Amino acid sequence: MKFIEGGVTAAKGFTASGVHAGIRKSRTKRDLGLIYSEKKAAAAALYTTNLVKGAPLTVTKEHIADGFAQAIIVNSGNANTCNANGIEIAEQTALLVAKELKIAKEDVVVASTGVIGQQMTIEPFEEGIPSLVETLSKDGSALAAEAMMTTDTVKKEVAVSFTVGGKEVKLGGIAKGSGMIHPNMATMLVFLTTDCAVAPKMLQKALSTDVQSSFNMVSVDGDTSTNDMVVILANGLAGNAPIEEENEDFAAFMKALNTVTVTLCKALAADGEGATKFLECKVSGAKTLADAKKAAKAVICSSLVKAAMFGSDANWGRVLCAVGYSGADVDVSKIGVTFVSKKGAIEVCKNGAGVDFSEEKAKEILLESEITIDVTFGDGSASATAWGSDLTYDYVKINGDYRT
Amino acid sequence: MKFIEGGVTAAKGFTASGVHAGIRKSRTKRDLGLIYSEKKAAAAALYTTNLVKGAPLTVTKEHIADGFAQAIIVNSGNANTCNANGIEIAEQTALLVAKELKIAKEDVVVASTGVIGQQMTIEPFEEGIPSLVETLSKDGSALAAEAMMTTDTVKKEVAVSFTVGGKEVKLGGIAKGSGMIHPNMATMLVFLTTDCAVAPKMLQKALSTDVQSSFNMVSVDGDTSTNDMVVILANGLAGNAPIEEENEDFAAFMKALNTVTVTLCKALAADGEGATKFLECKVSGAKTLADAKKAAKAVICSSLVKAAMFGSDANWGRVLCAVGYSGADVDVSKIGVTFVSKKGAIEVCKNGAGVDFSEEKAKEILLESEITIDVTFGDGSASATAWGSDLTYDYVKINGDYRT
Repeated sequence: MKFIEGGVTAAKGFTASGVHAGIRKSRTKRDLGLIYSEKKAAAAALYTTNLVKGAPLTVTKEHIADGFAQAIIVNSGNANTCNANGIEIAEQTALLVAKELKIAKEDVVVASTGVIGQQMTIEPFEEGIPSLVETLSKDGSALAAEAMMTTDTVKKEVAVSFTVGGKEVKLGGIAKGSGMIHPNMATMLVFLTTDCAVAPKMLQKALSTDVQSSFNMVSVDGDTSTNDMVVILANGLAGNAPIEEENEDFAAFMKALNTVTVTLCKALAADGEGATKFLECKVSGAKTLADAKKAAKAVICSSLVKAAMFGSDANWGRVLCAVGYSGADVDVSKIGVTFVSKKGAIEVCKNGAGVDFSEEKAKEILLESEITIDVTFGDGSASATAWGSDLTYDYVKINGDYRT
Repeated sequence: MKFIEGGVTAAKGFTASGVHAGIRKSRTKRDLGLIYSEKKAAAAALYTTNLVKGAPLTVTKEHIADGFAQAIIVNSGNANTCNANGIEIAEQTALLVAKELKIAKEDVVVASTGVIGQQMTIEPFEEGIPSLVETLSKDGSALAAEAMMTTDTVKKEVAVSFTVGGKEVKLGGIAKGSGMIHPNMATMLVFLTTDCAVAPKMLQKALSTDVQSSFNMVSVDGDTSTNDMVVILANGLAGNAPIEEENEDFAAFMKALNTVTVTLCKALAADGEGATKFLECKVSGAKTLADAKKAAKAVICSSLVKAAMFGSDANWGRVLCAVGYSGADVDVSKIGVTFVSKKGAIEVCKNGAGVDFSEEKAKEILLESEITIDVTFGDGSASATAWGSDLTYDYVKINGDYRT
């Protein structure tokens, strides 16, 4: 497996585009993106568990109930959530895309991100969709990625090439997400494409399994969004024998999928709203995977741990505190904590109690922009990793007045 | 029932004191406090549910297992948690207090708050306890309250006077807490005293019931501390017929208890680390009390709601989002949201969708320092209230470098 260029258009038969359609006021920011597969593709998706759901999710669920889709339309600037006319707008959007692409409207996935509870009109879509279709290209991945950015500061794209049944297969994706990110099924917008031939059932199985150790292990602020979804399209143009069971090919596909999703997870966490640091918490030696996950997530979600990391403060007591309330079954008297970065590693807690350590060395390590918090339980052999970011003045600033 | 002065020493037979003993470096800050009942008192307590627990909790649990206690010793500056010698220090502290007061060491409650995982020595206690005992007085409530402050900016004291069985009874308390506050049993240090005669079993029942709608409904930052406890002492000096069952007297006692605890809750929330605003979320019309509580807590805990309130931004979509992921069983299409402050009330969401409202009026209302977020479900008749604070630059600043 190797990393390649191209993001969501790396796989055969996929093109993309992004334009400014006028949903956002700023004329310099693209706000409408399209991803298209020249061949109808197997489709699988996961959605937010929030009871308050964006209208696009309802429409998308109906559209890919048959396991197939051919296009994804996504807008930023308005979440199309808690609007009286939300379903109508989402359906009209799908219809406009379908007409322009000459495909069935049931093969269009619709996604929106932005402010909740703002009225929407169809005009920007009527204006933008024809030019989106016109400009579809193999170079469009970055434009589509840009079109769905909200408070994101960087585009998130990745792609890999690997082999399935002797055929070269490609899988890539784009993601958007910066705030309102908390692990609970799919928690952001992520669109993945592959030319691998995979039966819809196996594609859903692969995605549902993968998110447990990828997107469900990311948290920026503990808020599970109303609009999040992860969608994958597999058009089969790589020519491999279709994956229809859990065989060697499925394993190769899962491995590539996890490489792509974990890369996107790290990019999402690193671009957390206002973040100055990317945080990773690795918990090992747990009794069960569930214990390891609970603890890793609790550490990544703790406001106090996040603020301490912002201040490069080796306040390991907060890490222990978070592990303690995480719900993980753990023998506190065996817990160890080590902070790791490019500058080295420093053990700060052993057997549940502090060890003497150099505050200067700890500071040097924690001043780096990528920090791993290594927590050992000594209770078993299960491990898990979660990703997040520090809590900063800028997070407060960004969210103190997001709407204006 | 009426509010009176005196805090934790308002009730007959209780005295208190506070000194600087040298646990904290700053000589201007008291760090050791004592509360004493001239008569052995019925005692009840609740403790943090964090698996990582301060040594004082272990010692206190043992000491009040028989339902009685006579003194409470509390220090700030060190949580006495995750220390190799923690239990030893806590036991020695109880012994020093017992010797000086000439009471049994099993009648001493021990509590600590401060940084986790720092070594402790007994010397400051040896030095401070004699002068604590010497200076015990009816005016000591504020000094004891001050001695347990960490990042708190104000002392938290309250007392009420009421009638039980024809006798005047007093109940008061002090609280400390500013950060690492999240509803999960008792989440802070709170010491309550009353001269009401209450059997230990009924005292525990009253406290356990009360915290469900008081301390368990406060959150500052989602982090459940390792050292929190609520302790109540009832010495019976009011001379009422002892409360030994759920009768009218018990109801009067519960009402007074709830008045005191809710007042302390609001004081804790208003003094949340870095807070500029006190937030209250009232959920009404829910199917069950559990649904109302889940929703109210989720709104109060949401970083995005907290940051929006800091920015006086009427971003009600975030309120709906939090309700949606709270786990409450709710019909989203019936939810209403109104923001309330001294400047008036403004409805911003009705039937799960936005209503036209004046942004200027909303801003005027939200610029106030006490905000109520009124959420109606229209599903039933259960209601609940939760308290918290906004998320500010100063929260990040305070917690970016707490140890130094």
